[in-house]
Amino acid sequence: MTDSQPIAVIGGLGSGLSAHLAARLAARGYRVAGLSRRGTPPPAEAPGCRAYACDLADGAAVADTFAAIRADLGAPSLYIHNAAQRVVGDFLDTRPEDFERLWRTACLGAVHCAQQVLPAMLEAGRGTLIFTGATGSLRGGARFSAFAASKFAVRALAQSLARAYGARGIHVVHTVIDGVIWSDGVAARHGMAQEDCLDPGAIAEAYLALVEQPPSCWTHEIDLRVAKETF
Amino acid sequence: MTDSQPIAVIGGLGSGLSAHLAARLAARGYRVAGLSRRGTPPPAEAPGCRAYACDLADGAAVADTFAAIRADLGAPSLYIHNAAQRVVGDFLDTRPEDFERLWRTACLGAVHCAQQVLPAMLEAGRGTLIFTGATGSLRGGARFSAFAASKFAVRALAQSLARAYGARGIHVVHTVIDGVIWSDGVAARHGMAQEDCLDPGAIAEAYLALVEQPPSCWTHEIDLRVAKETF
Amino acid sequence: MTDSQPIAVIGGLGSGLSAHLAARLAARGYRVAGLSRRGTPPPAEAPGCRAYACDLADGAAVADTFAAIRADLGAPSLYIHNAAQRVVGDFLDTRPEDFERLWRTACLGAVHCAQQVLPAMLEAGRGTLIFTGATGSLRGGARFSAFAASKFAVRALAQSLARAYGARGIHVVHTVIDGVIWSDGVAARHGMAQEDCLDPGAIAEAYLALVEQPPSCWTHEIDLRVAKETF
Amino acid sequence: MTDSQPIAVIGGLGSGLSAHLAARLAARGYRVAGLSRRGTPPPAEAPGCRAYACDLADGAAVADTFAAIRADLGAPSLYIHNAAQRVVGDFLDTRPEDFERLWRTACLGAVHCAQQVLPAMLEAGRGTLIFTGATGSLRGGARFSAFAASKFAVRALAQSLARAYGARGIHVVHTVIDGVIWSDGVAARHGMAQEDCLDPGAIAEAYLALVEQPPSCWTHEIDLRVAKETF
Repeated sequence: MTDSQPIAVIGGLGSGLSAHLAARLAARGYRVAGLSRRGTPPPAEAPGCRAYACDLADGAAVADTFAAIRADLGAPSLYIHNAAQRVVGDFLDTRPEDFERLWRTACLGAVHCAQQVLPAMLEAGRGTLIFTGATGSLRGGARFSAFAASKFAVRALAQSLARAYGARGIHVVHTVIDGVIWSDGVAARHGMAQEDCLDPGAIAEAYLALVEQPPSCWTHEIDLRVAKETF
Repeated sequence: MTDSQPIAVIGGLGSGLSAHLAARLAARGYRVAGLSRRGTPPPAEAPGCRAYACDLADGAAVADTFAAIRADLGAPSLYIHNAAQRVVGDFLDTRPEDFERLWRTACLGAVHCAQQVLPAMLEAGRGTLIFTGATGSLRGGARFSAFAASKFAVRALAQSLARAYGARGIHVVHTVIDGVIWSDGVAARHGMAQEDCLDPGAIAEAYLALVEQPPSCWTHEIDLRVAKETF
Repeated sequence: MTDSQPIAVIGGLGSGLSAHLAARLAARGYRVAGLSRRGTPPPAEAPGCRAYACDLADGAAVADTFAAIRADLGAPSLYIHNAAQRVVGDFLDTRPEDFERLWRTACLGAVHCAQQVLPAMLEAGRGTLIFTGATGSLRGGARFSAFAASKFAVRALAQSLARAYGARGIHVVHTVIDGVIWSDGVAARHGMAQEDCLDPGAIAEAYLALVEQPPSCWTHEIDLRVAKETF
Repeated sequence: MTDSQPIAVIGGLGSGLSAHLAARLAARGYRVAGLSRRGTPPPAEAPGCRAYACDLADGAAVADTFAAIRADLGAPSLYIHNAAQRVVGDFLDTRPEDFERLWRTACLGAVHCAQQVLPAMLEAGRGTLIFTGATGSLRGGARFSAFAASKFAVRALAQSLARAYGARGIHVVHTVIDGVIWSDGVAARHGMAQEDCLDPGAIAEAYLALVEQPPSCWTHEIDLRVAKETF
């Protein structure tokens, strides 16, 4: 462990994508911290990843956690925001509390984390923020009112940050994951076949390619879907 | 006052646009209720408009207010959501509380009001919801992170409602007001000339044209700007 | 017939929408000229409409026709571009000539007509151009490659003209007709019910509302669809 | 030269981006053919690249050229469409012939080439098409009417092909190059600094990453710009 190792933080550890990201980042020499509400242990694929229990919607907890990360590992040069929750159903069955809960995790959590990492990134004149979006980031579907409202908000935030800080060296990316990410749980819950789902390892590779883009050629928004997906 | 008079509710009374809408709706035979946090008295242009004090971000208060409106006037067939607040500044100077406050007024307030008016509209098989958007509904500007996040969320909500309830007779519209609406206050605060600003009366006329569209030809999204606006 | 009567030209006479537009414009006091390849006679609804035979894809013919219109009626203050053709099928079955034919009618025809009417409009400091778009103006569907390519191009043109000439008093509108416009022919050909189709008279009313917008509140793009349309 | 070497064709050889693509593809083991109107010799960076003189707007010439490529090298599994021309100026100074010329190179040329490569790709169940777009693919700027009309059309085509053939193994990508690509010529003509321009080598790397995406995680559209670009 040397000072030259870059530090990455993943907000929303636990999903398959986060585990694959943690593993690939570790293989690339990153020290990785993963945040989750319950302090989900580091994924088997990324044994060196450090897990922190933190409710991203709680600003004070986020501040404490990032202070601990800075003390434990150093200042992050990469933050990936994967935290999101989903509610599906008729609008009249969706409670205002659901709207609030989804917005807190997806959007307010992103605000909290971005405000923690940006000052050191701006001082260094470099850093990368990736916000994971979804189909619902671009389209308010009939049964996705609360989910889309939370994801549209994150997209707005990503655009604002890209425009505010791009010229100061901060690369801000918004991804649009258009489909379901494969996991054993998905198969069990929805009976979906693997070939109909996005591969989390391939998504992680796409994220790494974005992280490695030079400032002479940055992407702000990219969509990712399986070949057979209708769109 | 007869039972055949339609009922309109304007969320966010007080702005110039709301006053012009209230006046035109009254002239068209609507009974109009205007909601504002402080119970702003009815605008001079629309003396018959009934003013209700109501914090749209407070679900219980919204429910009580709509119960009063139903008792006083009847079930609304038109709801116009004008409520929004604005914060302009660097993201690192924008507090998470600002993000929350703007989201509560713009998005959560819209959820509360839509859930109050939709059941009767769906029973009647007709009704109109108009959500007032802005440039920031489509673009996250560098200094508008909290504002854009709140307005993107409202746009997602409007899309979801249009897709969920269009086939059941509910017309849902999202407007994109691309510029500053003229008022004496705007001139005083920003020194803007009237010819550089949108005319609130003309916006109100555009809204009335949307309200009067037959189900064979509905608009979901429309932009409105002054001729000389750069876009 | 007095000099104070405004002059409107409709490119692509013959469709149901054009006939309804001609009738409503005549009722509003416009002298109306309708252009079609074969000189389709004026619709029964608009007996005063003057029909001109003109291939919009032929620049010299368009120039001659507009010279005749100016001599016969005066300089147009309104041009509505309805001309378009449609090809549906697999890309590999769509001939390059189809791409060219559709582009010539939709896009090149619009260029020809806009270049004829703009000089006098710019001199007068006012005028309106409306370009009729479709679902395929926003989305390249799997079997609509040639159609979408032609309609995307018209949308680009409309945006360029709006941005170039808005500040000089020219109102440029692009409409997105998201669905099939009702006519007896549609029923006969596709067996569609009237309630699943857009009403051409209602579309014409929406166009008139756009024409009458004051420069303090202009729309550039508006979508129109039937209530039950999925989008 | 073995049968296992993949074949790539670049439509529009000569630009800096094409040379960098040719070099990188050759380094990855591709046999590369470059098409240009005048048969521009292979770039120094990619000495093995084979140059073909071909006017992409001429369907018969394109058919002959691809027949030669298939005979010389084999059936392409990758086609990259870089061909485009640009006209900047007031719409009333832009001739209809300019609209046509730009459309022929950008859109009709893409149709011709895609129809040449798709049959073998569909038979093989795999292949990649990349269409190079620009800022003008998404926005019709005031002085870019002909350019934007041609680039919007290509974007429509790319969407149609992606939707038509994605499920059959064909990966179709549309890139949005938002800015000026660096070259000595650009510096000479416009006096732009290298740090304000996109780096063609970096763009080529981004293209290679897209080519290498597995069908479980495909991108259809990606934007690329320099860090300091305003957008």
